[in-house]
Amino acid sequence: MAKATLTISSKNYSSWSLRGWLLCKMSGLDFDEAPVDPSDAEMRQELLLLSPTVRVPRLTHGKVQVWDTLAIAEYLNEAFPDAGLYPKDVARRAHCRAISGEMHSGFYNLRSALPMNLKARQERFKIFSGARPDVERVKTIWHDCLDTYDGPFLFGRPTVADAMYAPVCTRFRTYAVTLDDRLEAYIDTVLDWAPMQDWISGALAEPEEIEELEVEF
Amino acid sequence: MAKATLTISSKNYSSWSLRGWLLCKMSGLDFDEAPVDPSDAEMRQELLLLSPTVRVPRLTHGKVQVWDTLAIAEYLNEAFPDAGLYPKDVARRAHCRAISGEMHSGFYNLRSALPMNLKARQERFKIFSGARPDVERVKTIWHDCLDTYDGPFLFGRPTVADAMYAPVCTRFRTYAVTLDDRLEAYIDTVLDWAPMQDWISGALAEPEEIEELEVEF
Repeated sequence: MAKATLTISSKNYSSWSLRGWLLCKMSGLDFDEAPVDPSDAEMRQELLLLSPTVRVPRLTHGKVQVWDTLAIAEYLNEAFPDAGLYPKDVARRAHCRAISGEMHSGFYNLRSALPMNLKARQERFKIFSGARPDVERVKTIWHDCLDTYDGPFLFGRPTVADAMYAPVCTRFRTYAVTLDDRLEAYIDTVLDWAPMQDWISGALAEPEEIEELEVEF
Repeated sequence: MAKATLTISSKNYSSWSLRGWLLCKMSGLDFDEAPVDPSDAEMRQELLLLSPTVRVPRLTHGKVQVWDTLAIAEYLNEAFPDAGLYPKDVARRAHCRAISGEMHSGFYNLRSALPMNLKARQERFKIFSGARPDVERVKTIWHDCLDTYDGPFLFGRPTVADAMYAPVCTRFRTYAVTLDDRLEAYIDTVLDWAPMQDWISGALAEPEEIEELEVEF
């Protein structure tokens, strides 16, 4: 089988690309990154939320073509059952999928008001009131997991849920969202995680061509 | 193990409830429905998109508590591997998960501009321009599946993808969206499907208490 390819867009701005990439790293898949050209007109339409076409992340692995972050997670979980992408216990696994699904389908206000931007730091950012319930819900989800499973990741070891919430960890730092010590320690854990460090280095090295693309993601 | 319970809200308005309920029916799970009281203040907040808290659908099965529609799908697929919730072939299964994931995380404009309302029929509805690319994307997804797998459901037999797109079938009829014969035949297939008929009967029998809740879903 040919080596797998993961198509991604900006490492600085694309939170879905980050999630898909983390999942591939966690699974142990041997893959090449295929970055979409940021000047590609169709790509810009998509990043600006003007097109519903979903082009990233997209994984090509032999005869399998899979896009959508959770679909990639489930594909990798089946292909690499020993990688531990989900918890082994059935109830914990259901919990992990539930909060991963919440991130996937919801938090629209959080995603649009606090876009991922790894190069930025805004100390006096005022959170749009519509996004505040989303921030509170994230805090509740994290506390629930950390209290129940005792950290340092949401379900002890890294799982799909940490990949899903990793961009939120970066946003809370970028926009200086105040959290308690336990949640700050969780964010440190995610940001210090080796694959995350690798991604952030790539983001910081990106040219500034798509400066205005600070929407969603 | 105690009998399973699926918590749902309005059968007329809640598209996520419909999806979760169809998945339970397809799996063969023996379950009771637990409707949330439509006058419940917190429930109304949620239906009106004022709260990010996800309360429906929620499945309780023994020690497992699982919310979020795709998480329920994956839980049921593991618990009932012979029910065929996903296609058996790995590439088809990845495709099925990808388009299910697209519906789960996207189509925000379609969902807000054309809310599910099984009792309504609006022959002269003007689709908000922002929702038109969503409608086109649904048509592309359906054509791609029906051309590749030859119908009558998206992947031949009913799968998770049909449950995910079932509310869209009802919306296209409610708002008189014009489609070609092949796509109209697919909608007929879904609307004539026994569990769908069962749900629609329940929706039509619902009292009109929550008339103003025509947002999202």
